[in-house]
Amino acid sequence: MVEAGFRPFRPLAVVGLGLIGGSFALDVKRLGLAQKIIGYDQNPDHCEKALELGLVDAASPDLDESLRTAELVLLAVPVRALPNVAAQLLPFWNPEAILTDTGSVKSPLLNAMRNPKFSEVRFVGGHPIAGGERFGPEAAIPELFQGKRCILTPETHTEVEVSQRVRGLWTALGAEVLEMKASVHDQIFAAVSHLPHLLAYASIDAIVRSDHPGVLAYSGGGLKDFSRIASSSPEMWADIFLNNPTLLLDRVRVFQETLDTLTAAITSGDRDRILKLLHNAKDSRDRWMG
Amino acid sequence: MVEAGFRPFRPLAVVGLGLIGGSFALDVKRLGLAQKIIGYDQNPDHCEKALELGLVDAASPDLDESLRTAELVLLAVPVRALPNVAAQLLPFWNPEAILTDTGSVKSPLLNAMRNPKFSEVRFVGGHPIAGGERFGPEAAIPELFQGKRCILTPETHTEVEVSQRVRGLWTALGAEVLEMKASVHDQIFAAVSHLPHLLAYASIDAIVRSDHPGVLAYSGGGLKDFSRIASSSPEMWADIFLNNPTLLLDRVRVFQETLDTLTAAITSGDRDRILKLLHNAKDSRDRWMG
Repeated sequence: MVEAGFRPFRPLAVVGLGLIGGSFALDVKRLGLAQKIIGYDQNPDHCEKALELGLVDAASPDLDESLRTAELVLLAVPVRALPNVAAQLLPFWNPEAILTDTGSVKSPLLNAMRNPKFSEVRFVGGHPIAGGERFGPEAAIPELFQGKRCILTPETHTEVEVSQRVRGLWTALGAEVLEMKASVHDQIFAAVSHLPHLLAYASIDAIVRSDHPGVLAYSGGGLKDFSRIASSSPEMWADIFLNNPTLLLDRVRVFQETLDTLTAAITSGDRDRILKLLHNAKDSRDRWMG
Repeated sequence: MVEAGFRPFRPLAVVGLGLIGGSFALDVKRLGLAQKIIGYDQNPDHCEKALELGLVDAASPDLDESLRTAELVLLAVPVRALPNVAAQLLPFWNPEAILTDTGSVKSPLLNAMRNPKFSEVRFVGGHPIAGGERFGPEAAIPELFQGKRCILTPETHTEVEVSQRVRGLWTALGAEVLEMKASVHDQIFAAVSHLPHLLAYASIDAIVRSDHPGVLAYSGGGLKDFSRIASSSPEMWADIFLNNPTLLLDRVRVFQETLDTLTAAITSGDRDRILKLLHNAKDSRDRWMG
C-alpha cells in the first residue's frame, strides 16, 4: 500500500538480480515507485535476462558512475558477499543516497558497516521474509512481498529519515514492516528458519543413508512437505549457516536436548513423557496456524 | 481398479472407524466391493457417526456374533491396540475368514500372531500409505487410497489365497500393492516416516523454547510445511515410536551423526564440507521429486 506522503524514488539501484532483487525491481517498476531502476549483477547473463524480462531499465555486470544517480541502493546479493559488495560501492557513492539490503542474517553486515570507511553511507538493514527454491532473474515474480513481513534493523544512531524511506518502500510493495535489533533478528531466525533448514538437509542425508536403496520412493506426503526446504540453494544456506554460527548452534543444542529427551523416553517406554512433548509441540503449532 | 476375477466380499468387517477405517468402508461401499459392511468402534459416538455418514451398514461398540459372518476383517485401530483387539476377535472367529490390518508398524502384530491361540486365523499384515492430520469417522474421505501405495507383509507360510484376496481388495480401492518382509517395512518406515515425525515434533519444541515469546509468528512458509506433520495425532505417533523403538532409534543415531558433522563444519567454517552435504541432500530430494 502506497502511504500518504510517499514520494517515488529518483533512480533506484538493485545490486543482485536474483529471485529477491528481480522481484523487487519488477514490482518497483510495475507500481511506479521509482523514476528509473538500474540493475547490477556480476553475472552478465542475469543482466541480459533482467533487461529482456523488463525487470530493470538498465543493467551492468560492473558498478559504475550511474550508481551515483541512485537515491536508494538495495543490496540483494548472497549474505556472504554483502560486506565486500558494500565496499565496492564506495568509489561511486553519493552521500545523500540510502543503502539497504535483503540479507537473511543481519549482524555481519551491520558490524562491517561500523568500519569508518562507511561513515558517509546512510544505511539501514532489511530482511523481507519471502523467497522460494527457485533462483535467478527468471524466478522473479510480481507481488512476492505482498502480505509478507519485512524486518528492518535500525540502530540507535540510524537517521529517522533513512528508516522511514525504506519502510515506505517496502510498505508500498505490500509488506508489513517491523523493526527490531539485528541481534534479536538473528536469534529469532536462527530458531524459525536456519534451524529448520539445517534439520531438513540433515534428515534427507540420514534417510538416504538407510540400508535400503531408493528408500525415499516409499514415503508419503508427510516427508515431501517436511523436506521441501532441503531443495533450497545449498550455496545460499551454507552461507547463512556460516554467517550466524553461534546463534544457530545454540538452537541446535536445544534441539539435541529435545531429541535426547525423546530418545530416553522411547528407550524406557515412558509414554506419558512422549505424549506430553508431542502434545505441547502440536498445541504450539496449531495455535500458530490459528 | 477392480481386476478381472475379483469377487466381491460377503460381509466385510472393519474394526476401528477412524480416518483409515472410515475411508476404507466408504469406498468399499461406494464401489460395491462387499455385500455388507459391519463396523466396530469402542467409541459409541464413532459408531453413530459412521452410520449417519453411511460409511457402514451396521455398527456396534462391542464385537459380536455378526463378526462370524464376515469373510474379511480389517483392523484399523491404533498400532498399540492391535494385538489386544486381535485377541478379542477370537471368540467370534470364523476359521474361513481373512484377517488383515492397517498398522504403520508391522512386526509387533506379526509377532503377536505367532501365539498358538491365533493358529486358526488366516492373516496377512497391511499398511496403506495414506493418512492426514484429521481423525475420527468425520475425517473419512472417498478415494483416500487412490494412487497411494499399500504394503502387504506376507510370511513364507502365508496362504497365497489370503495375500491375493487382500491384494485384490486394495487394488480395487485404487492402491498400488507391494509386498515385503515386515522387518524390511519397519526399517524403511523408520527412515521415511517415523524419523521425520519425531524431528518435526522435536523441532517445534526447540523453536518455542527460544528466548523470544511468539517466535513462531516470524516464520515464513518454509517452517509451515516443514512442521505440518507435527500437527498429527500425538497418541498415534507416540504409539508408533514405542512400537518401532530399535529401528527408529538406529535412524535417530544416523541423523545425529549428520547433525554432528554439520555442527563441526559450521564451527570450523568448512564451507566445502557443508556444501557437499547440502548438495547431496538436495540432489537426492530433487531426484525423488522427479
